[in-house]
Amino acid sequence: MFSPIKNTKVYEQVIIQIKDMIAKGILRKGDKLPSERELVDKLGVSRTSIREALRALEIIGLVESRQGEGNFIRDNFENSLFEPLSVMFMLQKSSTLEIHQVRVMIETETASLAAKNIKDKDIEVLQGFIDKLKNSKDELERSISDKNFHYKIAECSGNFLINNILRSVSSLMDAFIVNARMVIVNESKARELLVEQHEDILQALIDRDSEAAVKAMRKHLDCIKEHLILMDNIYS
Amino acid sequence: MFSPIKNTKVYEQVIIQIKDMIAKGILRKGDKLPSERELVDKLGVSRTSIREALRALEIIGLVESRQGEGNFIRDNFENSLFEPLSVMFMLQKSSTLEIHQVRVMIETETASLAAKNIKDKDIEVLQGFIDKLKNSKDELERSISDKNFHYKIAECSGNFLINNILRSVSSLMDAFIVNARMVIVNESKARELLVEQHEDILQALIDRDSEAAVKAMRKHLDCIKEHLILMDNIYS
Repeated sequence: MFSPIKNTKVYEQVIIQIKDMIAKGILRKGDKLPSERELVDKLGVSRTSIREALRALEIIGLVESRQGEGNFIRDNFENSLFEPLSVMFMLQKSSTLEIHQVRVMIETETASLAAKNIKDKDIEVLQGFIDKLKNSKDELERSISDKNFHYKIAECSGNFLINNILRSVSSLMDAFIVNARMVIVNESKARELLVEQHEDILQALIDRDSEAAVKAMRKHLDCIKEHLILMDNIYS
Repeated sequence: MFSPIKNTKVYEQVIIQIKDMIAKGILRKGDKLPSERELVDKLGVSRTSIREALRALEIIGLVESRQGEGNFIRDNFENSLFEPLSVMFMLQKSSTLEIHQVRVMIETETASLAAKNIKDKDIEVLQGFIDKLKNSKDELERSISDKNFHYKIAECSGNFLINNILRSVSSLMDAFIVNARMVIVNESKARELLVEQHEDILQALIDRDSEAAVKAMRKHLDCIKEHLILMDNIYS
Protein backbone atom coordinates (compact mmCIF):
# COMPACT_ATOMS: atom_id res chain seq x y z
CA MET A 1 0.00 0.00 0.00
CA PHE A 2 2.72 2.51 0.98
CA SER A 3 6.38 2.60 -0.09
CA PRO A 4 9.25 4.00 1.99
CA ILE A 5 10.34 7.46 0.84
CA LYS A 6 13.73 9.02 0.15
CA ASN A 7 13.76 12.68 -0.83
CA THR A 8 14.61 16.15 0.36
CA LYS A 9 11.06 17.51 0.35
CA VAL A 10 9.64 14.64 2.30
CA TYR A 11 6.15 15.97 2.92
CA GLU A 12 5.65 16.39 -0.83
CA GLN A 13 6.30 12.71 -1.32
CA VAL A 14 3.77 11.84 1.36
CA ILE A 15 1.16 13.92 -0.46
CA ILE A 16 2.00 12.36 -3.81
CA GLN A 17 1.62 8.86 -2.38
CA ILE A 18 -1.76 9.68 -0.88
CA LYS A 19 -2.88 11.25 -4.17
CA ASP A 20 -1.74 8.14 -6.07
CA MET A 21 -3.65 5.87 -3.74
CA ILE A 22 -6.78 7.93 -4.40
CA ALA A 23 -6.20 7.77 -8.16
CA LYS A 24 -5.79 3.99 -7.94
CA GLY A 25 -8.91 3.62 -5.82
CA ILE A 26 -6.99 2.20 -2.84
CA LEU A 27 -8.20 5.12 -0.71
CA ARG A 28 -11.86 5.98 -1.11
CA LYS A 29 -14.08 8.67 0.36
CA GLY A 30 -14.93 8.07 3.99
CA ASP A 31 -11.88 5.82 4.44
CA LYS A 32 -9.82 6.19 7.58
CA LEU A 33 -6.14 6.89 7.02
CA PRO A 34 -3.53 4.89 8.93
CA SER A 35 -2.51 6.57 12.21
CA GLU A 36 0.39 9.04 12.24
CA ARG A 37 2.56 6.40 13.89
CA GLU A 38 1.71 3.78 11.26
CA LEU A 39 2.47 6.26 8.47
CA VAL A 40 5.84 7.02 10.09
CA ASP A 41 6.66 3.30 10.10
CA LYS A 42 5.37 2.55 6.62
CA LEU A 43 6.84 5.54 4.82
CA GLY A 44 10.04 5.74 6.85
CA VAL A 45 9.80 9.51 7.37
CA SER A 46 9.63 11.75 10.42
CA ARG A 47 6.44 12.40 12.33
CA THR A 48 6.85 16.11 11.49
CA SER A 49 6.70 15.40 7.75
CA ILE A 50 3.64 13.21 8.15
CA ARG A 51 1.93 15.86 10.22
CA GLU A 52 2.79 18.60 7.72
CA ALA A 53 1.32 16.56 4.88
CA LEU A 54 -1.84 15.71 6.82
CA ARG A 55 -2.37 19.33 7.89
CA ALA A 56 -2.00 20.47 4.30
CA LEU A 57 -4.61 17.95 3.16
CA GLU A 58 -6.88 19.09 5.98
CA ILE A 59 -6.51 22.72 4.93
CA ILE A 60 -7.29 21.84 1.33
CA GLY A 61 -10.36 20.04 2.67
CA LEU A 62 -9.44 16.54 1.52
CA VAL A 63 -8.79 15.12 4.97
CA GLU A 64 -11.00 15.54 8.00
CA SER A 65 -9.42 15.11 11.40
CA ARG A 66 -11.91 13.84 14.00
CA GLN A 67 -10.90 14.26 17.63
CA GLY A 68 -9.91 10.88 19.10
CA GLU A 69 -10.93 9.00 15.94
CA GLY A 70 -8.20 9.79 13.42
CA ASN A 71 -8.03 11.17 9.89
CA PHE A 72 -10.65 10.48 7.22
CA ILE A 73 -10.88 11.11 3.47
CA ARG A 74 -13.61 13.63 2.71
CA ASP A 75 -15.63 13.57 -0.48
CA ASN A 76 -16.37 17.24 -0.97
CA PHE A 77 -14.49 20.45 -0.51
CA GLU A 78 -17.50 22.62 0.24
CA ASN A 79 -16.12 23.55 3.63
CA SER A 80 -12.58 23.99 2.38
CA LEU A 81 -10.91 26.64 4.46
CA PHE A 82 -8.85 27.78 1.57
CA GLU A 83 -10.06 28.47 -1.93
CA PRO A 84 -6.93 28.44 -4.07
CA LEU A 85 -8.67 29.86 -7.13
CA SER A 86 -10.26 32.72 -5.21
CA VAL A 87 -6.97 33.61 -3.58
CA MET A 88 -5.11 33.44 -6.89
CA PHE A 89 -7.67 35.78 -8.34
CA MET A 90 -7.17 38.25 -5.49
CA LEU A 91 -3.43 38.13 -6.16
CA GLN A 92 -3.90 38.80 -9.85
CA LYS A 93 -6.10 41.84 -9.26
CA SER A 94 -8.12 40.79 -12.27
CA SER A 95 -11.05 42.85 -13.45
CA THR A 96 -14.70 42.44 -12.62
CA LEU A 97 -15.17 41.66 -16.31
CA GLU A 98 -13.06 38.53 -15.88
CA ILE A 99 -15.19 37.28 -12.97
CA HIS A 100 -18.23 38.06 -15.07
CA GLN A 101 -16.85 35.92 -17.92
CA VAL A 102 -16.35 33.05 -15.46
CA ARG A 103 -19.95 33.41 -14.30
CA VAL A 104 -21.22 33.37 -17.89
CA MET A 105 -19.09 30.31 -18.66
CA ILE A 106 -20.23 28.30 -15.64
CA GLU A 107 -23.79 29.46 -15.24
CA THR A 108 -25.02 29.16 -18.82
CA GLU A 109 -23.80 25.54 -18.67
CA THR A 110 -25.38 24.79 -15.27
CA ALA A 111 -28.67 26.30 -16.49
CA SER A 112 -28.54 24.14 -19.61
CA LEU A 113 -27.81 20.95 -17.67
CA ALA A 114 -30.27 21.76 -14.86
CA ALA A 115 -33.11 22.04 -17.38
CA LYS A 116 -32.47 18.38 -18.25
CA ASN A 117 -32.00 17.08 -14.71
CA ILE A 118 -34.20 19.15 -12.40
CA LYS A 119 -36.68 17.45 -10.04
CA ASP A 120 -40.01 18.89 -8.89
CA LYS A 121 -38.77 19.30 -5.33
CA ASP A 122 -35.81 21.36 -6.60
CA ILE A 123 -38.24 23.66 -8.38
CA GLU A 124 -40.06 24.23 -5.08
CA VAL A 125 -36.78 25.19 -3.43
CA LEU A 126 -35.95 27.62 -6.26
CA GLN A 127 -39.46 29.09 -6.02
CA GLY A 128 -38.85 29.66 -2.30
CA PHE A 129 -35.71 31.68 -3.06
CA ILE A 130 -37.59 33.80 -5.60
CA ASP A 131 -40.38 34.45 -3.07
CA LYS A 132 -37.81 35.83 -0.63
CA LEU A 133 -36.13 37.80 -3.41
CA LYS A 134 -39.52 39.38 -4.13
CA ASN A 135 -40.97 39.88 -0.67
CA SER A 136 -38.17 40.28 1.83
CA LYS A 137 -37.68 43.80 3.15
CA ASP A 138 -34.05 43.08 3.97
CA GLU A 139 -31.42 43.47 1.21
CA LEU A 140 -29.03 41.11 3.03
CA GLU A 141 -31.68 38.39 3.02
CA ARG A 142 -32.50 39.11 -0.63
CA SER A 143 -28.87 38.88 -1.69
CA ILE A 144 -28.48 35.55 0.15
CA SER A 145 -31.56 34.23 -1.69
CA ASP A 146 -30.05 35.46 -4.96
CA LYS A 147 -26.82 33.52 -4.32
CA ASN A 148 -28.70 30.44 -3.14
CA PHE A 149 -30.80 30.49 -6.31
CA HIS A 150 -27.67 30.33 -8.48
CA TYR A 151 -25.91 27.67 -6.37
CA LYS A 152 -29.04 25.53 -6.32
CA ILE A 153 -29.17 25.57 -10.13
CA ALA A 154 -25.52 24.45 -10.22
CA GLU A 155 -26.42 21.62 -7.85
CA CYS A 156 -29.31 20.64 -10.13
CA SER A 157 -26.94 20.44 -13.10
CA GLY A 158 -26.12 16.95 -11.85
CA ASN A 159 -22.47 17.56 -12.74
CA PHE A 160 -20.56 17.29 -9.49
CA LEU A 161 -17.38 18.68 -10.98
CA ILE A 162 -18.95 21.82 -12.47
CA ASN A 163 -20.87 22.43 -9.25
CA ASN A 164 -17.60 22.24 -7.33
CA ILE A 165 -15.74 24.51 -9.74
CA LEU A 166 -18.41 27.11 -9.01
CA ARG A 167 -18.06 26.51 -5.26
CA SER A 168 -14.29 26.73 -5.46
CA VAL A 169 -14.68 30.33 -6.64
CA SER A 170 -17.59 31.08 -4.33
CA SER A 171 -15.78 33.80 -2.36
CA LEU A 172 -15.44 35.67 -5.64
CA MET A 173 -18.96 34.94 -6.77
CA ASP A 174 -20.52 35.93 -3.45
CA ALA A 175 -18.73 39.27 -3.42
CA PHE A 176 -19.66 39.75 -7.08
CA ILE A 177 -23.36 39.06 -6.49
CA VAL A 178 -23.53 41.30 -3.40
CA ASN A 179 -21.77 44.14 -5.24
CA ALA A 180 -23.82 43.75 -8.41
CA ARG A 181 -27.01 43.90 -6.37
CA MET A 182 -25.73 46.92 -4.45
CA VAL A 183 -25.40 48.82 -7.72
CA ILE A 184 -28.56 47.53 -9.38
CA VAL A 185 -31.14 47.52 -6.59
CA ASN A 186 -30.71 51.23 -5.96
CA GLU A 187 -33.09 51.72 -8.85
CA SER A 188 -36.48 50.25 -7.86
CA LYS A 189 -37.26 49.45 -11.52
CA ALA A 190 -34.03 47.47 -11.78
CA ARG A 191 -34.95 45.48 -8.68
CA GLU A 192 -38.21 44.38 -10.27
CA LEU A 193 -36.26 43.51 -13.39
CA LEU A 194 -33.92 41.25 -11.37
CA VAL A 195 -36.91 39.39 -9.91
CA GLU A 196 -38.40 38.96 -13.38
CA GLN A 197 -35.12 37.62 -14.76
CA HIS A 198 -34.92 35.02 -12.01
CA GLU A 199 -38.53 34.06 -12.70
CA ASP A 200 -37.74 33.64 -16.40
CA ILE A 201 -34.83 31.32 -15.55
CA LEU A 202 -37.06 29.27 -13.26
CA GLN A 203 -39.83 29.09 -15.88
CA ALA A 204 -37.36 27.67 -18.43
CA LEU A 205 -36.27 25.06 -15.89
CA ILE A 206 -39.91 24.18 -15.15
CA ASP A 207 -40.43 23.72 -18.90
CA ARG A 208 -37.27 21.54 -19.00
CA ASP A 209 -36.16 23.78 -21.88
CA SER A 210 -32.34 23.93 -22.01
CA GLU A 211 -32.15 26.52 -24.75
CA ALA A 212 -34.58 28.84 -23.01
CA ALA A 213 -32.69 28.38 -19.73
CA VAL A 214 -29.38 29.36 -21.35
CA LYS A 215 -31.08 32.35 -22.99
CA ALA A 216 -32.70 33.52 -19.75
CA MET A 217 -29.46 33.10 -17.77
CA ARG A 218 -27.51 34.96 -20.43
CA LYS A 219 -30.05 37.81 -20.43
CA HIS A 220 -29.75 38.06 -16.64
CA LEU A 221 -25.95 38.12 -16.77
CA ASP A 222 -25.93 40.59 -19.69
CA CYS A 223 -28.05 42.94 -17.59
CA ILE A 224 -25.49 42.67 -14.79
CA LYS A 225 -22.69 43.32 -17.26
CA GLU A 226 -24.24 46.67 -18.14
CA HIS A 227 -23.64 47.68 -14.54
CA LEU A 228 -20.04 46.46 -14.45
CA ILE A 229 -18.51 49.90 -14.91
CA LEU A 230 -20.30 51.11 -11.80
CA MET A 231 -19.14 47.99 -9.96
CA ASP A 232 -15.52 48.62 -10.82
CA ASN A 233 -15.89 51.90 -8.99
CA ILE A 234 -16.98 50.00 -5.90
CA TYR A 235 -14.04 47.60 -6.10
CA SER A 236 -11.42 50.28 -6.49
CA MET B 1 -0.27 43.70 9.99
CA PHE B 2 -0.63 40.50 12.03
CA SER B 3 -2.74 39.94 15.17
CA PRO B 4 -1.95 37.43 17.93
CA ILE B 5 -4.06 34.29 17.70
CA LYS B 6 -6.04 32.33 20.27
CA ASN B 7 -7.73 29.16 19.05
CA THR B 8 -7.63 25.39 19.19
CA LYS B 9 -6.87 24.86 15.48
CA VAL B 10 -4.04 27.32 15.41
CA TYR B 11 -2.70 26.62 11.92
CA GLU B 12 -6.14 27.39 10.46
CA GLN B 13 -6.00 30.84 11.99
CA VAL B 14 -2.56 31.44 10.50
CA ILE B 15 -3.92 30.55 7.06
CA ILE B 16 -6.97 32.77 7.50
CA GLN B 17 -4.78 35.73 8.45
CA ILE B 18 -2.55 35.24 5.41
CA LYS B 19 -5.62 34.91 3.15
CA ASP B 20 -7.07 38.10 4.65
CA MET B 21 -3.87 39.99 4.04
CA ILE B 22 -3.97 38.91 0.40
CA ALA B 23 -7.62 39.97 0.10
CA LYS B 24 -6.77 43.37 1.58
CA GLY B 25 -3.78 43.78 -0.72
CA ILE B 26 -1.26 43.90 2.16
CA LEU B 27 0.46 40.82 0.73
CA ARG B 28 1.03 40.89 -3.03
CA LYS B 29 2.48 38.42 -5.50
CA GLY B 30 6.23 38.14 -5.25
CA ASP B 31 6.21 39.47 -1.68
CA LYS B 32 8.43 37.82 0.87
CA LEU B 33 6.68 36.55 3.97
CA PRO B 34 8.10 37.34 7.41
CA SER B 35 10.49 34.63 8.67
CA GLU B 36 9.14 31.70 10.68
CA ARG B 37 10.58 33.24 13.83
CA GLU B 38 8.96 36.62 13.16
CA LEU B 39 5.62 34.93 12.52
CA VAL B 40 5.96 33.05 15.81
CA ASP B 41 6.50 36.35 17.62
CA LYS B 42 3.81 38.33 15.82
CA LEU B 43 1.07 35.71 15.94
CA GLY B 44 1.96 34.28 19.33
CA VAL B 45 1.71 30.67 18.19
CA SER B 46 4.13 27.75 18.12
CA ARG B 47 6.72 27.28 15.42
CA THR B 48 5.05 23.96 14.56
CA SER B 49 1.76 25.69 13.76
CA ILE B 50 3.51 28.28 11.60
CA ARG B 51 5.39 25.58 9.75
CA GLU B 52 2.22 23.52 9.20
CA ALA B 53 0.45 26.53 7.75
CA LEU B 54 3.38 27.45 5.49
CA ARG B 55 3.77 23.88 4.22
CA ALA B 56 0.08 23.73 3.41
CA LEU B 57 0.32 26.96 1.42
CA GLU B 58 3.37 25.58 -0.36
CA ILE B 59 1.54 22.39 -1.28
CA ILE B 60 -1.40 24.38 -2.59
CA GLY B 61 1.13 26.33 -4.64
CA LEU B 62 0.52 29.74 -3.08
CA VAL B 63 3.83 29.97 -1.27
CA GLU B 64 7.22 29.19 -2.73
CA SER B 65 10.00 28.30 -0.32
CA ARG B 66 13.42 29.27 -1.68
CA GLN B 67 16.41 27.67 0.01
CA GLY B 68 18.20 30.23 2.20
CA GLU B 69 15.96 33.06 1.03
CA GLY B 70 12.64 32.49 2.75
CA ASN B 71 9.01 32.12 1.71
CA PHE B 72 7.46 34.08 -1.17
CA ILE B 73 3.91 34.58 -2.44
CA ARG B 74 3.47 33.00 -5.86
CA ASP B 75 1.10 34.34 -8.46
CA ASN B 76 0.12 31.19 -10.29
CA PHE B 77 -0.68 27.65 -9.33
CA GLU B 78 0.49 26.05 -12.56
CA ASN B 79 3.04 23.95 -10.73
CA SER B 80 0.75 23.15 -7.84
CA LEU B 81 1.64 19.73 -6.54
CA PHE B 82 -1.93 19.07 -5.61
CA GLU B 83 -4.96 19.65 -7.77
CA PRO B 84 -7.86 19.62 -5.35
CA LEU B 85 -10.47 19.50 -8.11
CA SER B 86 -8.81 16.60 -9.91
CA VAL B 87 -8.49 14.63 -6.68
CA MET B 88 -12.07 15.33 -5.72
CA PHE B 89 -13.14 14.07 -9.08
CA MET B 90 -11.17 10.86 -8.63
CA LEU B 91 -12.89 10.37 -5.27
CA GLN B 92 -16.32 10.88 -6.78
CA LYS B 93 -15.73 8.35 -9.53
CA SER B 94 -17.68 10.59 -11.85
CA SER B 95 -18.34 9.60 -15.44
CA THR B 96 -16.36 10.51 -18.53
CA LEU B 97 -19.50 12.36 -19.65
CA GLU B 98 -19.07 14.74 -16.71
CA ILE B 99 -15.47 15.53 -17.64
CA HIS B 100 -16.65 16.04 -21.20
CA GLN B 101 -19.27 18.55 -20.01
CA VAL B 102 -16.54 20.44 -18.15
CA ARG B 103 -14.44 20.56 -21.31
CA VAL B 104 -17.37 21.85 -23.34
CA MET B 105 -18.10 24.48 -20.71
CA ILE B 106 -14.53 25.76 -20.46
CA GLU B 107 -13.30 25.32 -24.02
CA THR B 108 -16.19 26.85 -25.92
CA GLU B 109 -15.68 29.94 -23.75
CA THR B 110 -11.88 30.02 -24.16
CA ALA B 111 -12.32 29.65 -27.94
CA SER B 112 -14.80 32.51 -27.99
CA LEU B 113 -12.55 34.81 -25.94
CA ALA B 114 -9.37 33.78 -27.77
CA ALA B 115 -10.89 34.83 -31.10
CA LYS B 116 -11.14 38.34 -29.67
CA ASN B 117 -7.73 38.49 -28.02
CA ILE B 118 -5.35 36.37 -30.07
CA LYS B 119 -2.03 37.82 -31.33
CA ASP B 120 -0.23 36.84 -34.54
CA LYS B 121 2.61 35.20 -32.63
CA ASP B 122 0.08 32.99 -30.77
CA ILE B 123 -1.29 31.85 -34.11
CA GLU B 124 2.20 30.78 -35.15
CA VAL B 125 2.53 28.71 -31.97
CA LEU B 126 -0.85 27.06 -32.57
CA GLN B 127 0.14 26.36 -36.19
CA GLY B 128 3.28 24.64 -34.89
CA PHE B 129 1.19 22.31 -32.72
CA ILE B 130 -1.03 21.43 -35.67
CA ASP B 131 2.05 20.68 -37.82
CA LYS B 132 3.22 18.17 -35.21
CA LEU B 133 -0.29 16.75 -34.90
CA LYS B 134 -0.25 16.19 -38.65
CA ASN B 135 3.29 15.04 -39.30
CA SER B 136 4.69 13.38 -36.19
CA LYS B 137 5.04 9.60 -36.42
CA ASP B 138 4.83 9.30 -32.64
CA GLU B 139 1.39 9.17 -30.99
CA LEU B 140 2.82 10.37 -27.66
CA GLU B 141 4.19 13.48 -29.36
CA ARG B 142 0.92 13.98 -31.23
CA SER B 143 -1.14 13.72 -28.04
CA ILE B 144 1.14 16.25 -26.31
CA SER B 145 0.66 18.66 -29.24
CA ASP B 146 -3.08 18.10 -28.98
CA LYS B 147 -3.07 19.05 -25.29
CA ASN B 148 -0.77 22.02 -25.89
CA PHE B 149 -3.07 23.30 -28.61
CA HIS B 150 -6.02 23.40 -26.20
CA TYR B 151 -4.05 24.93 -23.30
CA LYS B 152 -2.59 27.59 -25.61
CA ILE B 153 -6.10 28.65 -26.66
CA ALA B 154 -7.06 28.94 -22.99
CA GLU B 155 -4.01 31.13 -22.44
CA CYS B 156 -5.04 33.29 -25.42
CA SER B 157 -8.47 33.81 -23.88
CA GLY B 158 -6.84 36.56 -21.85
CA ASN B 159 -8.89 35.47 -18.84
CA PHE B 160 -6.43 34.40 -16.21
CA LEU B 161 -9.07 32.86 -13.99
CA ILE B 162 -10.62 30.67 -16.69
CA ASN B 163 -7.17 29.59 -17.87
CA ASN B 164 -6.35 28.54 -14.32
CA ILE B 165 -9.63 26.72 -13.80
CA LEU B 166 -8.68 24.61 -16.83
CA ARG B 167 -5.20 24.05 -15.43
CA SER B 168 -6.56 23.12 -12.03
CA VAL B 169 -8.30 20.16 -13.66
CA SER B 170 -5.43 19.43 -16.04
CA SER B 171 -4.72 15.93 -14.64
CA LEU B 172 -8.26 15.05 -15.62
CA MET B 173 -8.07 16.78 -18.98
CA ASP B 174 -4.73 15.24 -19.90
CA ALA B 175 -5.94 11.73 -19.16
CA PHE B 176 -9.14 12.51 -21.04
CA ILE B 177 -7.32 13.75 -24.15
CA VAL B 178 -4.88 10.82 -24.18
CA ASN B 179 -7.73 8.30 -23.79
CA ALA B 180 -9.95 9.99 -26.35
CA ARG B 181 -7.10 9.94 -28.86
CA MET B 182 -6.35 6.31 -28.05
CA VAL B 183 -9.87 5.37 -29.09
CA ILE B 184 -10.19 7.72 -32.04
CA VAL B 185 -6.80 7.47 -33.76
CA ASN B 186 -7.14 3.74 -34.25
CA GLU B 187 -9.20 4.60 -37.29
CA SER B 188 -6.96 6.39 -39.80
CA LYS B 189 -9.93 8.35 -41.18
CA ALA B 190 -10.75 9.59 -37.69
CA ARG B 191 -7.17 10.78 -37.25
CA GLU B 192 -7.40 12.95 -40.35
CA LEU B 193 -10.71 14.22 -39.04
CA LEU B 194 -9.08 15.28 -35.77
CA VAL B 195 -6.42 17.24 -37.65
CA GLU B 196 -9.10 18.93 -39.76
CA GLN B 197 -11.09 19.88 -36.67
CA HIS B 198 -8.05 21.51 -35.09
CA GLU B 199 -7.39 23.36 -38.34
CA ASP B 200 -10.98 24.63 -38.38
CA ILE B 201 -10.60 25.94 -34.84
CA LEU B 202 -7.37 27.70 -35.78
CA GLN B 203 -8.92 29.20 -38.93
CA ALA B 204 -11.75 30.70 -36.87
CA LEU B 205 -9.18 32.22 -34.51
CA ILE B 206 -7.19 33.61 -37.46
CA ASP B 207 -10.43 35.18 -38.71
CA ARG B 208 -11.03 36.59 -35.20
CA ASP B 209 -14.51 35.07 -35.50
CA SER B 210 -15.82 34.18 -32.02
CA GLU B 211 -18.97 32.47 -33.23
CA ALA B 212 -17.09 30.30 -35.72
CA ALA B 213 -14.51 29.43 -33.03
CA VAL B 214 -17.24 28.27 -30.64
CA LYS B 215 -18.87 26.28 -33.43
CA ALA B 216 -15.59 24.61 -34.49
CA MET B 217 -14.68 23.79 -30.89
CA ARG B 218 -18.13 22.37 -30.24
CA LYS B 219 -17.95 20.24 -33.39
CA HIS B 220 -14.58 18.87 -32.27
CA LEU B 221 -15.87 18.06 -28.78
CA ASP B 222 -19.10 16.56 -30.16
CA CYS B 223 -16.98 14.21 -32.28
CA ILE B 224 -15.12 13.14 -29.15
CA LYS B 225 -18.40 12.65 -27.32
CA GLU B 226 -19.44 10.09 -29.92
CA HIS B 227 -16.48 7.99 -28.77
CA LEU B 228 -17.27 8.37 -25.07
CA ILE B 229 -18.92 4.96 -24.75
CA LEU B 230 -15.73 3.33 -25.99
CA MET B 231 -13.73 5.48 -23.59
CA ASP B 232 -15.79 4.36 -20.61
CA ASN B 233 -14.65 0.84 -21.46
CA ILE B 234 -11.05 2.00 -21.15
CA TYR B 235 -11.65 3.65 -17.79
CA SER B 236 -13.38 0.67 -16.20
